[in-house]
Amino acid sequence: MSKTDYSVYLVTDTGMCPRENLIDVCGKAIDGGTTLIQLREKDISSRAFYEEALALKALCARRAVPLLINDRVDIALAAGADGIHIGQSDIPLEAAQRLLGKDKIIGVSAGSVAEAVEAEQGGADYLGVGAVFPTSTKDDAENVGIDMLKAVRGAVKIPIVGIGGINAENIEKLRGTGIDGVAVVSCIMASRDPEAAAAALKEKVHNL
Amino acid sequence: MSKTDYSVYLVTDTGMCPRENLIDVCGKAIDGGTTLIQLREKDISSRAFYEEALALKALCARRAVPLLINDRVDIALAAGADGIHIGQSDIPLEAAQRLLGKDKIIGVSAGSVAEAVEAEQGGADYLGVGAVFPTSTKDDAENVGIDMLKAVRGAVKIPIVGIGGINAENIEKLRGTGIDGVAVVSCIMASRDPEAAAAALKEKVHNL
Repeated sequence: MSKTDYSVYLVTDTGMCPRENLIDVCGKAIDGGTTLIQLREKDISSRAFYEEALALKALCARRAVPLLINDRVDIALAAGADGIHIGQSDIPLEAAQRLLGKDKIIGVSAGSVAEAVEAEQGGADYLGVGAVFPTSTKDDAENVGIDMLKAVRGAVKIPIVGIGGINAENIEKLRGTGIDGVAVVSCIMASRDPEAAAAALKEKVHNL
Repeated sequence: MSKTDYSVYLVTDTGMCPRENLIDVCGKAIDGGTTLIQLREKDISSRAFYEEALALKALCARRAVPLLINDRVDIALAAGADGIHIGQSDIPLEAAQRLLGKDKIIGVSAGSVAEAVEAEQGGADYLGVGAVFPTSTKDDAENVGIDMLKAVRGAVKIPIVGIGGINAENIEKLRGTGIDGVAVVSCIMASRDPEAAAAALKEKVHNL
């Protein structure tokens, strides 16, 4: 398997676009430079999740973009996805590894250096670290997120993507953090022009 | 694998008992004669579902009672459960079979003869058929459920459990339907005496 490009990492949210537009939005996001897609669904039947994963995998396979599934190892396996992304309240990393085998990508959400180190030691392929730009009225919230990215970068060797409120306007604040990519939801999913939104991130992420 | 006994089939519902009592209630239900347990959870994190499945599997293994997981093939595999039960809005039977292999039990919910025949032809191990006693103000609703059980029994050869409002008071109305067991939720889960509730069903189910 070639090295995974985490630089422009799209997390889907069908709360932000009509579900019937999902494949179209993802296709445009890939046109703009999205390098990896994570399909995330929460309030949906397993059947609908599976069918959506199949359709998105077909698109991603044509475009040579890896598809990860949020949380659901069974959906990932059934739809032939390239891996999963798990949070701290999903099934444990070691259980996911047993089910998925060695060839699939497994990413883990980390909200602290301790969680990041534990996931790396457990064999995670990459980390989603955040929230980078949390919604907060505190003036220093932004620096807390950026400082955590730097601290995690200093503590682990596996790829890191920052997540949480990142967009083309604030991405330059992440310069010097040493992250491998930015994971975004709304800045592409809720955009009127997903291709341009992805392209704006792609241009700037390589200058970090 | 020995022949599965579907006669007193408990479907869990932690909306009906405090979650911390689940293992205790299931243990008492087994004391009373429960022959199979299906763990069903809807609004719970994957981590909590997995940990609950592990704990319930430990109980079921000690008591030689099969444990099935509702919907989630990944939880079933990770926790070493004996199989799954899938509804019409869960992942398709053929996808579940690919993930689970031949040695696990796969049950399918059928609400019509057509769904029952399709599931049998697809290789389901058993059917959950209902709702037998739906909540309804129509006087003939009860007969609709019982007539459907008989029609499904006439159309398929695999084991059938009736589900939907069955309890120790109305179970005798199922005499002559030819079903292999009764699947119950509230009549055990919401009982003050789960052992007695299961025992009452066990006594009567063998007279059907």
